[in-house]
Amino acid sequence: MSESAVAVNLADKLSQFSELWSQKRVAVLNDYEVKLAKLKGEFVWHTHEETDELFLVISGRLTIQLRDADVVLEPGELYVVPRGVEHCPRADEETAILLLEPAGTLNTGDAGGPMTKAAEILG
Amino acid sequence: MSESAVAVNLADKLSQFSELWSQKRVAVLNDYEVKLAKLKGEFVWHTHEETDELFLVISGRLTIQLRDADVVLEPGELYVVPRGVEHCPRADEETAILLLEPAGTLNTGDAGGPMTKAAEILG
Repeated sequence: MSESAVAVNLADKLSQFSELWSQKRVAVLNDYEVKLAKLKGEFVWHTHEETDELFLVISGRLTIQLRDADVVLEPGELYVVPRGVEHCPRADEETAILLLEPAGTLNTGDAGGPMTKAAEILG
Repeated sequence: MSESAVAVNLADKLSQFSELWSQKRVAVLNDYEVKLAKLKGEFVWHTHEETDELFLVISGRLTIQLRDADVVLEPGELYVVPRGVEHCPRADEETAILLLEPAGTLNTGDAGGPMTKAAEILG
């Protein structure tokens, strides 16, 4: 049996970390990364000029603030922020999400700053 | 408010169709499509030479048969079939999945045949 032929259990992966606002890579699809993160509080306003960004809520509740709207995501709901659209995620309770975007996409996009962190590989 | 600033609720989308083995597009991420499908029974053995393919089980239970292993996915579990790897999905009970792959990827890959069907856009 191939060593790589193993399912990725999202709940198991989420149980392996508690750090907030730190993306953990759990799978790779071509040149895209599937990442998990735990959020609480407000992130920073930023834009990804080069790529769309998919958010899928696993638990909790995520508000993706856009400049002209809020998109509220409950578990089992997803939203794709189009490239070039400024956004700021906010979670009033601790929230677990799945993210999908090209490998190397920085969490803070064009904004930089102290919250900037590369995705980590979760074993 | 942007008309496009609306969450995609996966359960709602799944309630909108009952057809088996028919991929329904619910979101677009760059040149990738996020699709839903309902499966029961066995598909056909096939390979995607040009792309990896992500399967995430929402409900039910999916067995992704590979030539040297079976990968069994329960709800909340995902697996990426690497490009070039022959596989055949099988669901012994009705199973709902989320699929992610580049737009235009055919469901039957290189195999063709009567099960071949382009993804449909779910309103």
